[in-house]
Amino acid sequence: MYIIAVYDVGQKRVGKMLKLCRRYLNWIQNSVFEGEITEVKFKQLKYEARSIMDEEEDSFIIFSSRDEKWLEKEIVGKERGSIDNFL
Amino acid sequence: MYIIAVYDVGQKRVGKMLKLCRRYLNWIQNSVFEGEITEVKFKQLKYEARSIMDEEEDSFIIFSSRDEKWLEKEIVGKERGSIDNFL
Repeated sequence: MYIIAVYDVGQKRVGKMLKLCRRYLNWIQNSVFEGEITEVKFKQLKYEARSIMDEEEDSFIIFSSRDEKWLEKEIVGKERGSIDNFL
Repeated sequence: MYIIAVYDVGQKRVGKMLKLCRRYLNWIQNSVFEGEITEVKFKQLKYEARSIMDEEEDSFIIFSSRDEKWLEKEIVGKERGSIDNFL
């Protein structure tokens, strides 16, 4: 499956969420990631995210599609994630 | 068509981008929006975004799908956009 994941977490947890998402997905912008992922890895990602997050305060939204072909991506302006050297 | 739009713009332009996106889409988290949109409106949105953005610095990423049914959304933690009272 193909997913787009966006987190919005408290400042203290940003670094951990960033590292977590980068282990599973490709960073494309700020707190936005995308990538092909298996169902098992997807479950792991959510499980690990929950262990980092304060679920009363933080939010982690994931859009998923069975196939990348159902999704088109368009970038206006600067393509940030194209050079994968963040952190 | 159904789109997910995420912007990452300089502090000075955040307010304008937020207002712009809210005119066309539903706010779901920080700088993330989603919604059903016509091709014509989608072009307008991108045109207006370009007029606000500094294309050397800012980035606006749009994922689109011909139909919302190809996309599933899952939220871990707090569902922020559910109460649409931001700004």
